[in-house]
Amino acid sequence: MFSFQLTSSDLAPTAARTGVITTARGEIRTPAFMPVGTLATVKSMLPEEVAATGAHILLVNAYHLYLRPGHQLIERLGGVHRFMDWHGPILSDSGGFQVFSLARLGRVDDHGVRFRSHIDGSEHTYTPELAMAVQRALGVDIAMPLDHVLPGDAPLEPARLAAERTIRWYERCREAAGELTTFAIVQGGVHPGLRQWHARELAALDAPGYSIGGLSVGESKEEMWAMTPLVTAELPVGRPRYLMGVGSPEDLVNGVARGVDMFDCVLPTRLGRNGSLFTDDGRATIRNARFREDPNPIDPDCDCENCRRFSMAYLHHLFRNDELLGYRLASIHNIRYLVRLTERMHAAIQAGRFSDFAAEFLSRYRASDETVRHDQKEKWRRRAFETQG
Amino acid sequence: MFSFQLTSSDLAPTAARTGVITTARGEIRTPAFMPVGTLATVKSMLPEEVAATGAHILLVNAYHLYLRPGHQLIERLGGVHRFMDWHGPILSDSGGFQVFSLARLGRVDDHGVRFRSHIDGSEHTYTPELAMAVQRALGVDIAMPLDHVLPGDAPLEPARLAAERTIRWYERCREAAGELTTFAIVQGGVHPGLRQWHARELAALDAPGYSIGGLSVGESKEEMWAMTPLVTAELPVGRPRYLMGVGSPEDLVNGVARGVDMFDCVLPTRLGRNGSLFTDDGRATIRNARFREDPNPIDPDCDCENCRRFSMAYLHHLFRNDELLGYRLASIHNIRYLVRLTERMHAAIQAGRFSDFAAEFLSRYRASDETVRHDQKEKWRRRAFETQG
Repeated sequence: MFSFQLTSSDLAPTAARTGVITTARGEIRTPAFMPVGTLATVKSMLPEEVAATGAHILLVNAYHLYLRPGHQLIERLGGVHRFMDWHGPILSDSGGFQVFSLARLGRVDDHGVRFRSHIDGSEHTYTPELAMAVQRALGVDIAMPLDHVLPGDAPLEPARLAAERTIRWYERCREAAGELTTFAIVQGGVHPGLRQWHARELAALDAPGYSIGGLSVGESKEEMWAMTPLVTAELPVGRPRYLMGVGSPEDLVNGVARGVDMFDCVLPTRLGRNGSLFTDDGRATIRNARFREDPNPIDPDCDCENCRRFSMAYLHHLFRNDELLGYRLASIHNIRYLVRLTERMHAAIQAGRFSDFAAEFLSRYRASDETVRHDQKEKWRRRAFETQG
Repeated sequence: MFSFQLTSSDLAPTAARTGVITTARGEIRTPAFMPVGTLATVKSMLPEEVAATGAHILLVNAYHLYLRPGHQLIERLGGVHRFMDWHGPILSDSGGFQVFSLARLGRVDDHGVRFRSHIDGSEHTYTPELAMAVQRALGVDIAMPLDHVLPGDAPLEPARLAAERTIRWYERCREAAGELTTFAIVQGGVHPGLRQWHARELAALDAPGYSIGGLSVGESKEEMWAMTPLVTAELPVGRPRYLMGVGSPEDLVNGVARGVDMFDCVLPTRLGRNGSLFTDDGRATIRNARFREDPNPIDPDCDCENCRRFSMAYLHHLFRNDELLGYRLASIHNIRYLVRLTERMHAAIQAGRFSDFAAEFLSRYRASDETVRHDQKEKWRRRAFETQG
């Protein structure tokens, strides 16, 4: 059971739209931000705290759960929903991105990809069929196919080969998916023609939804925002579009403006644990001495657990003493901030004033350049082309 | 506003009893375990989670809050209850124990104690008057006086001098306390006559409650349990007795048997963060591979947030991956375990079968020898007698 209903579209010049995804475990209003629970836990938070942020779906990672504790163990224990006690929809990443970035990559060919675990160096072969078996064992609501991911600066020829392979793999994934709703993933690097061709080829396969992969992986923001509308323009209007691994607040606004419906990112929880909190003016660093005695919440407009109850002074105190509660409150705030941002965009789109909203938001928000995957990028870039089979 | 009402006493041979402490912020049923929120946070937990364990009072530490963020800052922000959003009763430790153990101790004389901060080495002079000013600024419900704490193996003569000074300091603390309910602290090391004398002297001063200090500070358990009943026998029946810094499950049972009403300890949260969980059979180490696929809760009789919802397999998975949620769930379980133990003792005392309960509990529970303060002990012992003024 999976369907997507568009509920409104913004007037030109933006491609923003609102919709509702229906799954057996509940509805998801779009635009949607999906908090990341890589290892079947949104770091530091209980499921009801995630739900209280307004998030209706979360993401787990098949690569991580395949390695530890093992998808079969989770299946024997009743599936990932029961394991982590979250009973709303769950989307799983297939592990494609992780296999090609986090693991020690071995041979890649049409059969699949050999890699060594980033945990213990053990050797594994991941295939489209295994990626689907893992996600079926987890019992998720929306699965991703295995895709061939390259760094953002991959030249045209390897990008073309990887995109072609991604189509062949997607067909095998669909075959192996059974009843499991499985999106297609559009690749193609930063090559406009290749991106458009790949999107068209996958559109012809009539997937229930489309992910945009291979962005936010080392290319520039300009390239990312040049590619995204080329892709969404080729995709069927009546299918949800999911921009993988994105975003920051400004990325969500830019993505929605280009017709994206779904986002996920570890940014809110990772930044939260570092004491960096989203506000409409940009990120606030809570350890900064100027917050030492501030009796106000970090964001007076925010209705999260933290902002309703605690002063910046208290949060500053928690971070200054490395108190675990600080990581949790900051994560809650940041996720709520992004979910609330999707709610604000939803209202603006429905009122036909998204363009103004986006312009106002982006002119006020002081963006930070760091992206979450930055630490992985250099390492990955150095070795990525040595290993193409 | 402070009162204590005995509600029942066990039949001999134990001195166990039940009671109710009434404060302006609520009632506390005794025997009571007080979770420790040293820095105005019970590590990893929100106030409502602490309340959900059944705890009716928690403890903060005046020494720590004096150093960071400063008691005056907390006062300007509306007091410690508002700062941390816990609106039930709070008891504060004066910091006597920390000054004499954690800080770099300087000169001690009747005026007070000079020390250097364990955080930044800054120099401070703590006096009975300052200890009370700090606790009044925090706005706690029950305060402790400054006492002169010695290691558990202190010889008679220094122990006698410290005990005498503790009386003089208590009188000054009462003077400085204003309306603030301030217990007296019984010292006297492991010297039976000195302990009895000190308890009698303080009993004559008619304090609203009595703390038993200077135990669980390096002496043996046998010595601790030999001293405790000597003290409680000298104290007025109608005043609550608080055994400071104790306990483990077996310590709670042994303490209640000897007439103790209140306990506090960082053990449940510290052990929780280490993945060590209380059960009636002793501590379970959740990282142990035997829990890897166990679908049951750690304690089938426990009604805590963790045991009602999560399998040992999930908790094992969280700890194996150093997930913050694991620390939190284990802390919740351990605090609930101790609070539930006080509830079980309460029921047994009121039913006149505490003796049997204690015997059964202690014969089943496999105690561990480690105590929380162990890491501080050796360091402290080495230097403690060099610094007596």
